[in-house]
Amino acid sequence: MPTRRQCANAIRVLAIDAIEKAKSGHPGAPLGMADMAEALWRRHFKHNPANPSWPDRDRFVLSNGHASMLHYALLHLTGYDLSIAEIENFRQWQSKTPGHPETGITPGVDMTTGPLGQGIASAVGMALAERMLAARFNTAEHSIVDHYTWVFCGDGCLMEGVSHEACSLAGVWKLGKLIVLYDANGISIDGRIDAWYSEDVRARFTAYGWQVIGPVDGHDAAALDAAIDGAKGETARPSLIICRTHIGFGSPKADSEKCHGSPLGEGAARAARRTLDWHEPPFVIPDDIYRAWDARRTGMAAEERWRTAFAAYRQACPDLADEFGRRMAGDLPADWPAPAQGVLREARTRAEDAATRAASKAVLECLVPRLPELVGGSADLSGSVGTCTTASRHFEPVSGLGNYISYGVREFGMGAIMNGLALHGGFIPYAGTFMAFSDQAKNAVRLAALMGLRLVWVFTHDSIGVGEDGPTHQPVEQLASLRATPGLLLWRPCDITETAVAWQCALESRHMPTCLSLSRQSLPFHTRDDAQVALIARGGYVLRDCEGAPEIILIATGSEVALAEATAERLNTLGHRARLVSMPCTELFDAQDAAYKERVLPNACRARLAVEAAAPDFWRKYAGLDGAVCGMSTFGASAPAASLWGHFGFSVEHLLDMALELLKNRA
Amino acid sequence: MPTRRQCANAIRVLAIDAIEKAKSGHPGAPLGMADMAEALWRRHFKHNPANPSWPDRDRFVLSNGHASMLHYALLHLTGYDLSIAEIENFRQWQSKTPGHPETGITPGVDMTTGPLGQGIASAVGMALAERMLAARFNTAEHSIVDHYTWVFCGDGCLMEGVSHEACSLAGVWKLGKLIVLYDANGISIDGRIDAWYSEDVRARFTAYGWQVIGPVDGHDAAALDAAIDGAKGETARPSLIICRTHIGFGSPKADSEKCHGSPLGEGAARAARRTLDWHEPPFVIPDDIYRAWDARRTGMAAEERWRTAFAAYRQACPDLADEFGRRMAGDLPADWPAPAQGVLREARTRAEDAATRAASKAVLECLVPRLPELVGGSADLSGSVGTCTTASRHFEPVSGLGNYISYGVREFGMGAIMNGLALHGGFIPYAGTFMAFSDQAKNAVRLAALMGLRLVWVFTHDSIGVGEDGPTHQPVEQLASLRATPGLLLWRPCDITETAVAWQCALESRHMPTCLSLSRQSLPFHTRDDAQVALIARGGYVLRDCEGAPEIILIATGSEVALAEATAERLNTLGHRARLVSMPCTELFDAQDAAYKERVLPNACRARLAVEAAAPDFWRKYAGLDGAVCGMSTFGASAPAASLWGHFGFSVEHLLDMALELLKNRA
Repeated sequence: MPTRRQCANAIRVLAIDAIEKAKSGHPGAPLGMADMAEALWRRHFKHNPANPSWPDRDRFVLSNGHASMLHYALLHLTGYDLSIAEIENFRQWQSKTPGHPETGITPGVDMTTGPLGQGIASAVGMALAERMLAARFNTAEHSIVDHYTWVFCGDGCLMEGVSHEACSLAGVWKLGKLIVLYDANGISIDGRIDAWYSEDVRARFTAYGWQVIGPVDGHDAAALDAAIDGAKGETARPSLIICRTHIGFGSPKADSEKCHGSPLGEGAARAARRTLDWHEPPFVIPDDIYRAWDARRTGMAAEERWRTAFAAYRQACPDLADEFGRRMAGDLPADWPAPAQGVLREARTRAEDAATRAASKAVLECLVPRLPELVGGSADLSGSVGTCTTASRHFEPVSGLGNYISYGVREFGMGAIMNGLALHGGFIPYAGTFMAFSDQAKNAVRLAALMGLRLVWVFTHDSIGVGEDGPTHQPVEQLASLRATPGLLLWRPCDITETAVAWQCALESRHMPTCLSLSRQSLPFHTRDDAQVALIARGGYVLRDCEGAPEIILIATGSEVALAEATAERLNTLGHRARLVSMPCTELFDAQDAAYKERVLPNACRARLAVEAAAPDFWRKYAGLDGAVCGMSTFGASAPAASLWGHFGFSVEHLLDMALELLKNRA
Repeated sequence: MPTRRQCANAIRVLAIDAIEKAKSGHPGAPLGMADMAEALWRRHFKHNPANPSWPDRDRFVLSNGHASMLHYALLHLTGYDLSIAEIENFRQWQSKTPGHPETGITPGVDMTTGPLGQGIASAVGMALAERMLAARFNTAEHSIVDHYTWVFCGDGCLMEGVSHEACSLAGVWKLGKLIVLYDANGISIDGRIDAWYSEDVRARFTAYGWQVIGPVDGHDAAALDAAIDGAKGETARPSLIICRTHIGFGSPKADSEKCHGSPLGEGAARAARRTLDWHEPPFVIPDDIYRAWDARRTGMAAEERWRTAFAAYRQACPDLADEFGRRMAGDLPADWPAPAQGVLREARTRAEDAATRAASKAVLECLVPRLPELVGGSADLSGSVGTCTTASRHFEPVSGLGNYISYGVREFGMGAIMNGLALHGGFIPYAGTFMAFSDQAKNAVRLAALMGLRLVWVFTHDSIGVGEDGPTHQPVEQLASLRATPGLLLWRPCDITETAVAWQCALESRHMPTCLSLSRQSLPFHTRDDAQVALIARGGYVLRDCEGAPEIILIATGSEVALAEATAERLNTLGHRARLVSMPCTELFDAQDAAYKERVLPNACRARLAVEAAAPDFWRKYAGLDGAVCGMSTFGASAPAASLWGHFGFSVEHLLDMALELLKNRA
């Protein structure tokens, strides 16, 4: 029977070997955290390697994702579908072992990490999901949701602001089943951290309302066990276990930043093997160590026990069991899309002018009661962004009930927590803030796109229409930034009809996040026939057409559609054939077939005027070199919105001048 | 002689009146913080209303910028060039009183605030600047740099992650002259904060190494004085004074979020005047209260004392005095641009291949010793981003000496602190991180652009050239995002020559920040004649031309220039007339006159192929509808860079296919 240290050393040598072979990677953290990993994964972690999707498995987030080889070694050793060939293929094209952990690529990886701090922040969302699902589905007799969320993180994660935002909330929310093991090795890339990180981490997390355990010796398995038991014993507070470790443990470069981000090198790798008393060739693990790690039998048994319990639960509460199954599968309610169609019908019947933020709220008023998986929220702007409906109930930490989160003024933390909610399963998160502050959350939006998560960002106040609050609150470049992000749908609807369709598409977009760009100010309702309404989901369509082939095409989104429409009418009155294209979602329009795109934007018509109160360059994609764009090439300003529109050129007169100029040049 | 409360009430009624008249604004915070403002500004704040640029004035940052009317009232009452007409014109087009404070618009406003948390974070940079200048310029006999940095902030600022990042550093740096008055009113926009902000702020800031004073009654002038004295008495730690206040103090909506973000309304405004025992008409302040506030005489005297001291300093240390004057004026060294030209000359002579991150480091190696105003740094990636030169000395908190900052893993905090350094004056900050993590700092970059600050971001690892670290570390949309941001120069140089020119332009760009987009991987040196080198600063120029008018133009930046060049050569070999345009800075190219742009990109030539390993849509601006773009429309992947280039279509073969297709369609 191998010792625990020998088991940990198996992680270490796999990390060393894989990184040497790849000639790239981060050995320091896997070597330093191997004993922590052994303690957690061999004694406490609930999982079934044969089924990484088991709903009640513990979640594990490697927040310092550069330690990826630690995770891959754990998955390989415990029996996941991750062969030694994949370990040997570390960091190679289309391997299952990319440089940083990526969910969806490696079985057993619950989250894509790498950007420091976001792992721990999203883990807060996962633990919140567990708490809310437990409150919703467990009964006095049956506990079918009952698992921990475990996090490994390093100093860098705790330096990042997003850890502050999310961990402060974890304290408020009393997430007793969130347990963080902090790899306190005192080294970051630039060297010993004392000169840039001297805060008292214990006091900081205690201030957040966490239990803090340690420092413990992060290389002492028994001490780690005791600390983990202490963390599990505390149910009303999240726990942070401070583990003092040596980065690069066992290698000649231990306790130095030199082992952080590059292979040890042949000599040091050989020396490490000697120090670790490891005598196998690279990538060879002795059978007894494989056996000591193998979690397949215990994992299968654990899931089996849960399945038995779930069968009893299904017997006792069939509706709840079905609903739990539906939610975890990510299926929309059985009557879908009826609720969305109802909203759309009602919107078209009422035909009311409205700010699209208000339109979005009206849509949510219908959908929230019908979709219990919706968990809403806002970064302290609930009233302004319209995310809190009459059916919204604030999350209550003690009962765990509720479907609405007040995230406070924490855009980035909110985004990371939404990612965690979506990753856990059982929820479709949506939340709002001002579009200008999408900046703060940007990298969480990016990770949502990279991970293919279904969630909805409600970005309101999406232009100079903000008015008096001025340029700090008026987005300009944010639309371009989000549209340039792969794997993301950005909708900028022009009225309640387009808003309703946008929400339906967002909820049906199972593997892609959606950002809604919504106006602060009221926008007119546009009438459309049924055929036009059906085209909205194509992302771009002809909203008003001329007789015959158009001489000029106006393309607009959101709040500028009405302006473009008025301009097109004037052009038609002047005898020009002007078409108006509404383009609420360019990603979906781009995905249409060439014939449809040609019907909407005939190649022959090059007099094209794009209108959007945002950075203009993006629109050259449709306007081309011979067209024109009316956009914002400077920051906005503080003044009543009505005066800003004119000053920045968003008037029918100015658009008419631009259009006539295009027509003249054409002639 | 009016009471202190009456003086504070003058702020309150001006805020009420201006917000009522504007029909928009945030009365709650000015009403709540008026007594804090009275205590600070009438008893402690060192300033001269007649000269808001006095180098040794105290700095004041209203981190909760929505309380702008508090600041405007203070500036008006103490005698700045801010008339009552401007107060009456609050939030109107081109007034000096925009919705949120904007530096450069209102005399006496040291920083643009509004996005919560960034004020306090940039104030850390200002206090750091004071500390570093004092260490550099003060002598045993002469103290010419000796002022405080004061911050007002609210709960929202402390929830934001950037406050964590910067305040943790302020503790490490022992910034004893940074004093924050925290408006702890227990209310944010969504209501009573307990449900989303329950952390122990005292314990948190103590953990950072701050002195924490209070809670004190934020409406008790004497208690506030004592607290401020206590803060000034502590010289080795920054101080946080927790002030318990009532939001909307004096109004019927006090202690409620209802007074946060909209006018009180006529009835409540009238009731507030009664409660405050204020009987003047709107916008009328009694003379005795004006007299009690007037700081012009004392301010003039204070600056006069400093000028006398500075004259003695100049006598004793003329060189230091000149250098201080130069640095605070923002002038480059007298021998400029000789150092930059020397770098350029050397680069051209050496003609070496290099990663542009290494090229940037080589440039810095020459410039850092010659420009003492350069203060460098990195978010824990010093070795990777090449910001730390042999002439760089780490900032040492006790002595205050050094020209290099290890910011730790805190991109956003780093950005906000750079903004503070630049705002203070005396420094040109530059700092580096990976381009993918520009996301985290984005809103600080935006504020730098909005404020027109000279500073340089060194964003390296700017494409899939990152290789094995994978998609979390490979930027795609970041270039589009930064290019869409107004008031910003983005340079993506293709070799050391362009890198040297980029640095020169960045340092000469006095009122605009610069982002450098630099490669991880080595890039070939391109030969150019003198005329071509002179054109680099135009942002785009012909790097390789064909005989006669081009049939096709290839446009590329950075690491893709060499690839485009090889493709152009192949095209020329095949008998096509292909031109290669290097476009390192599109903002500068766009600013050229039409004739120059036509010379580089003749309108008649529509077969245009843009090549950049980033989101492609931006390039339609130059490629048009008839051109093509080779870019990244998905996220990258983890693999050796050499294999990624091919898999994502960045090969001569693929570019050649695209080019030939364009030529065929043209025919």
